[in-house]
Amino acid sequence: KYSTAPKSAAKCYDAWCGVAHGCTRKLGMKICGFLQKNNNLEERSRIVSSFKERTAKNLLSCDNSGGEARFRRTETDFSNLYARELLPAKNGEEPTMQFLLEVVEILTSYIRKTFDRSTKVLDFHHPHQLLEGIEGFNLELSDQPESLEQILVDCRDTLKYGVRTGHPRFFNQLSTGLDIVGLAGEWLTSTANTNMFTYEIAPVFVLMEQLTLKKMREIVGWPDGEGDGIFSPGGAISNMYSVMIARYKFFPEVKTKGMAAAPRLVLFTSEHVSQTLTVSHYISKCSSGKNISHLDEILLHILFFSRGRVIPADLEAKVIEAKRKGYVPLFVTATAGTTVYGAFDPINEIADICEKYNMWLHVDGAWGGGLLMSRKHRHKLNGVERANSVTWNPHKMMGVPLQCSAILVRERGLLQGCNSMCAGYLFQPDKQYDVTYDTGDKAIQCGRHVDIFKFWLMWKAKGTVGFEQHIDKCLDLSAYLYNKIKNREGFEMVFNGEPQHTNVCFWYIPPSLRSLPDGEERRQRLHKVAPKIKAMMMESGTTMVGYQPQGDKVNFFRMVISNPAATRSDIDFLVEEIERLGHDL
Amino acid sequence: KYSTAPKSAAKCYDAWCGVAHGCTRKLGMKICGFLQKNNNLEERSRIVSSFKERTAKNLLSCDNSGGEARFRRTETDFSNLYARELLPAKNGEEPTMQFLLEVVEILTSYIRKTFDRSTKVLDFHHPHQLLEGIEGFNLELSDQPESLEQILVDCRDTLKYGVRTGHPRFFNQLSTGLDIVGLAGEWLTSTANTNMFTYEIAPVFVLMEQLTLKKMREIVGWPDGEGDGIFSPGGAISNMYSVMIARYKFFPEVKTKGMAAAPRLVLFTSEHVSQTLTVSHYISKCSSGKNISHLDEILLHILFFSRGRVIPADLEAKVIEAKRKGYVPLFVTATAGTTVYGAFDPINEIADICEKYNMWLHVDGAWGGGLLMSRKHRHKLNGVERANSVTWNPHKMMGVPLQCSAILVRERGLLQGCNSMCAGYLFQPDKQYDVTYDTGDKAIQCGRHVDIFKFWLMWKAKGTVGFEQHIDKCLDLSAYLYNKIKNREGFEMVFNGEPQHTNVCFWYIPPSLRSLPDGEERRQRLHKVAPKIKAMMMESGTTMVGYQPQGDKVNFFRMVISNPAATRSDIDFLVEEIERLGHDL
Repeated sequence: KYSTAPKSAAKCYDAWCGVAHGCTRKLGMKICGFLQKNNNLEERSRIVSSFKERTAKNLLSCDNSGGEARFRRTETDFSNLYARELLPAKNGEEPTMQFLLEVVEILTSYIRKTFDRSTKVLDFHHPHQLLEGIEGFNLELSDQPESLEQILVDCRDTLKYGVRTGHPRFFNQLSTGLDIVGLAGEWLTSTANTNMFTYEIAPVFVLMEQLTLKKMREIVGWPDGEGDGIFSPGGAISNMYSVMIARYKFFPEVKTKGMAAAPRLVLFTSEHVSQTLTVSHYISKCSSGKNISHLDEILLHILFFSRGRVIPADLEAKVIEAKRKGYVPLFVTATAGTTVYGAFDPINEIADICEKYNMWLHVDGAWGGGLLMSRKHRHKLNGVERANSVTWNPHKMMGVPLQCSAILVRERGLLQGCNSMCAGYLFQPDKQYDVTYDTGDKAIQCGRHVDIFKFWLMWKAKGTVGFEQHIDKCLDLSAYLYNKIKNREGFEMVFNGEPQHTNVCFWYIPPSLRSLPDGEERRQRLHKVAPKIKAMMMESGTTMVGYQPQGDKVNFFRMVISNPAATRSDIDFLVEEIERLGHDL
Repeated sequence: KYSTAPKSAAKCYDAWCGVAHGCTRKLGMKICGFLQKNNNLEERSRIVSSFKERTAKNLLSCDNSGGEARFRRTETDFSNLYARELLPAKNGEEPTMQFLLEVVEILTSYIRKTFDRSTKVLDFHHPHQLLEGIEGFNLELSDQPESLEQILVDCRDTLKYGVRTGHPRFFNQLSTGLDIVGLAGEWLTSTANTNMFTYEIAPVFVLMEQLTLKKMREIVGWPDGEGDGIFSPGGAISNMYSVMIARYKFFPEVKTKGMAAAPRLVLFTSEHVSQTLTVSHYISKCSSGKNISHLDEILLHILFFSRGRVIPADLEAKVIEAKRKGYVPLFVTATAGTTVYGAFDPINEIADICEKYNMWLHVDGAWGGGLLMSRKHRHKLNGVERANSVTWNPHKMMGVPLQCSAILVRERGLLQGCNSMCAGYLFQPDKQYDVTYDTGDKAIQCGRHVDIFKFWLMWKAKGTVGFEQHIDKCLDLSAYLYNKIKNREGFEMVFNGEPQHTNVCFWYIPPSLRSLPDGEERRQRLHKVAPKIKAMMMESGTTMVGYQPQGDKVNFFRMVISNPAATRSDIDFLVEEIERLGHDL
């Protein structure tokens, strides 16, 4: 489709760069940009002549008319282009660069809007509305290719109907915000498109992972950062690693002989868990009393708690009871930052019990691990250095783009011992480099996404102090919210006292309920308030915050702050918005 | 730091756009680009005045001197900027856009080189060399932030010392290539930075996943695409889902009562497995005879095979033997495309046995599933529609960027039944939209990365026919390679007959070994040939292909072709490169 390079390349370049400048607008500049960046004259001339040809075909014109016209011209531009004409197609370089820059334009425009408080957090539509093809947005896949123009429209629509998780007023999840350096890291990661499997195919990323894990272990407090670890697709899988490693440590023969080689093992965890759960994730909460883990046929004891925290005396009583019944207590999870209350289990007291009964101590810091970066708040995880393993998700409190979760292990060799397959057809021991850098034999996966780079890059860019500032700021904001509403009319706290993490749990009581006496009617009506306010919030698109029931407590709002864009004015806005939407309920 | 908007915004814009054009080079154009894209006059003027201010400070100058100088000017530009000045910082928009465009420039330059055969596939360094900080590339993290200039240098270095997995001569893994539309999809995904957990926070992505899974089930051959499924972080985890679901289907009480509620279960798989393994991944291959799975305490039988394929008669004999011993045969994996040989198990014959003995049939098509898109090659998976579950990784044969793996389930409701937690604090049933669209309760994860968008976008852009063409082309290339080397002097095939998939397994026999008689000496020397050639390949950076031993076969090359950039000339190059490097061994 594109003609090949004429000989008079250099001259042609200058002439066409002039023409492109004459066009002035977006496309002209892009083309000039290519021309300048590219030092190879033949390539320049190839691009130029293709531009010439396409101009001649009137696919694009050069007048300086207004914005709307420009936009349409760009559409025309891509309407005759298809994916098959992009690289690696012959002469695919120019359309590739044009297409990618057009995508970047869509993305940067989205980023600008994300941080703009005058825009909505979301433009809500019901599933059936989107499925019906609202405003021409067609989600169906077809046999025949669509033009790149359509692909660009689809990209715009995808963002339009999505949720701006980086918006300063998005508080709905533990993972919020849009870190620009982290984003750049993700863009690079997907461009590199490799796999953490071996040093051979991911040399730089494998080393970055190793150094970052060591730094994290130092911060946990293990001497010289010794130990092991790996990044996994999320907290649930990091926690799963911890159970597997603990079992391997105490009963290595399970690996070759199966569970028959081990006694009946017991795990202990609190009902209030980190959102990433695992151990607890595999619990069926439908049956009461005994709860059984799903993946591991290990008995699982749920511990009593106070304000979301495990009561150590209850843990010890349950351990004794399990031993009396002939079971072997294996594993205790101390949660550092529960999903709903943001509570921190007393790690030191739990560690004492683990030492006494020779159990594996796992700290699930998926949500709360980030507080280790803060000199002011890390005391909430005192004793974490006594853990055998720690889950810590930088994609939550530290604002790293999803997915980024680490499992850290104090004893070196267990990860490899537990997961290695001795499979020469996957890992060749006779390679020319030091194959101890290959990570594939430590992982439960083969293909493993590069989750490290964005995190490494953010750490470089912010420094340890930058993470500390971010965390201190978020905790300050949650204290601000707590102080603002604790005595405010119409608000009622779910638990007393300042929150330990950024979780602030509260009910909004509409005026119509304020005079009702405590009792079933009030409970039932209050239970419906948060869902109604949330629905209106989503319809109006102004902000988003989560709600849920917990135990015997009816639906309440759980505010969490991990969004670096949030300020006190956004907290004020949220409170007033809840009042505005809920006032007449 | 940046001044606020003056009132004479519109005029100022024009004036400064002129100045920016006067600067001509990269930066000027970028600024003009911003100005033009941005229709808001106040914003324009803010950007302009910040540009003015910075120019006055001599952070950038406007002369037209040569390339080197320009580069340095850009460096100066970012050397005083830090991550904390990017969005959401006040006036962070301009530095954010500049920084991101600079990153995009690094990435597009990398993409151009990736597809350029005159560049290397990799620039190999040993781990200790990179760790020592080669050419100033410092991987260590520090407490204090680095300037954005340093961050950009780090991005360049990361790519420089990495491996170009999209290079037309990169054949090292099952996942190769760099699809431009897929890449655009990943860039958008990371910009949207959300989580597949609920419709609430990922409305568009959740629907795309649903529609794409349905399309995949239609292609598998289930009536009307009925059934269920989910995208997971990789084939190992997709396969893990299948085991969990099978166990839940036959013994649902395991979920609430633990494995004690089930008899001793047996899984059957071949030793030749898909690279994503799982079931088989958890096998310890160190002990022979009985192999035990790691995560599931279920006996695992390895089946005999011929040319990598399961022998159905052996499967039936092993099932009968297991039953005789009092075990319950639960689950059979038929591999569609083994890692090394690319072999396809005879699914129909295995399905007959599964029906006869009431066992779950799982087809692991992580590698071979893509062939379902090809009318010419899909017969190799005949019978797949009889499977109860199918693993299919678009990130392998279909060229979708890593990670993208689907587990498809024929019976609706099992995924949810197996994994649901009835946890109201995670999933609120009283939301205003149809919560059956929430996927969190089907998944073993809570936070789940958006893996669907890039795949959906590629499908839109290529159409089903585009995937078909890609797959047919790759298989043609492997037939071309097979025909080229099967009778070529110095080459010896590991198995006879045309390959079923794109895997071509062969030895290169250097002249010094050609006259050696079969025997231990020849075996031992041949075993060292592939590693040596591979090491030289990596040192010279010309191409990359994998090698491994398998069973009693010494190290051989395993060529796999999934790279859309590869052509016959690249295959020729590979063969000649092996001869060149191996000739004197």
